[in-house]
Parts: sequence; C-alpha cells; structure tokens
Amino acid sequence: MFVTIVNIVVKPENIDQFIEATVENHRHSIKEKGNLRFDVLQHRDNPSAFTLYEAYDSDEASAEHKKTAHYLKWRQAVEPWMSEPRRGIAHKIVVPVERSAWNR
Amino acid sequence: MFVTIVNIVVKPENIDQFIEATVENHRHSIKEKGNLRFDVLQHRDNPSAFTLYEAYDSDEASAEHKKTAHYLKWRQAVEPWMSEPRRGIAHKIVVPVERSAWNR
Repeated sequence: MFVTIVNIVVKPENIDQFIEATVENHRHSIKEKGNLRFDVLQHRDNPSAFTLYEAYDSDEASAEHKKTAHYLKWRQAVEPWMSEPRRGIAHKIVVPVERSAWNR
Repeated sequence: MFVTIVNIVVKPENIDQFIEATVENHRHSIKEKGNLRFDVLQHRDNPSAFTLYEAYDSDEASAEHKKTAHYLKWRQAVEPWMSEPRRGIAHKIVVPVERSAWNR
C-alpha cells in the first residue's frame, strides 16, 4: 500500500468545473480494484487550492488507474483550468499498516 | 468533518526517533472521540520528509486534540528534531462526504 498526495491550484473562474470533474473522477476511481482511498479536499483558506489523497494497494494499481478512461478524461479536462503544474508526492505508509484501516 | 495535512521535515539523524514518537502519538490520537484518521506517511524519495493526515469530526475535536497529554508530549519531543518549521493546512472535505468513509 502507498499514498500519493497531489497538490493542485486552479484558476478562480474554474473552481466549480474542477470540483465537478474531480468528483466524477472520485466516483469512478473508488471502484477500481486496487484503490483504497481517493479523498478530494479543498484548502479552507484558499478555495483555488485542492489536495487529492489517493491510496493504492500497489504501484501496479496506481499505474492501472492512470490508464483508465475516467482518469484520462479528467486529466484532459482539468489541464487548462490549472494555474500552475500539479505536484504529486508518493508516500510510504508508516501507520496504520493494517489493511482494514484503509479499505473502505 | 475536516482534514489537517501537516508537512514535517526532520534532521536525518532524528528520523528513527521521530517515527517512534509519532507512532505513539498516532496510537493515542486514533482513540480520541472526535478523531477520524491519523495517518503517518513518509516521502518515498526523501526519508526526512513526513506527512500527517489528520481527520476530525469538528474544529472542537481538533482543539481538544491539541490539549491532550500525548499531543503535548509529541510536540515537545519532536521540536528539536525538525530541520524546518512544520506546516499544517486545514482542508474542507469535497468527497467522500458520508461519515462511514472516514470512520475507522
């Protein structure tokens, strides 16, 4: 298991569209076999700034996610809405290590 | 419900101590009534960099956390181990909004 945290900043005029597209991506992503979480968060003090918290069973599951139609559709849709390149950071899980704490 | 994401960078010589102290903080924190998650993560490409993913029922629950003996002990212990000030960012939850997706 591992977690990718993605930081995204969108243009103020595209916030609503970004939320709609990302909620749709969330709905599909959580149905992927190897996905454990796909939380979509918005900074309280900056509504243009978003964080995706994506947990996967394995590197292979994450790679499969990036081949799905919903991910490719999302990536293409949000590209022009971002005000800076998005940044994703891969993390090892220190705790909790039991899978039941991750499996929805 | 809301999520605070805390970014921490520790000195290389204090990584093991930091993990030990933070796992202990995790063990106590997840027992707090208003805590929903307390994930402790380590950057894959930088073992000195850590991320805490803390979900709470309310602002009050988060404020209560900061009064607990385990939090105060952790904060004091890790202070000299950090190589830069830690940064916490509060987030609104866009999805999932159902509490069952957060409650362990």
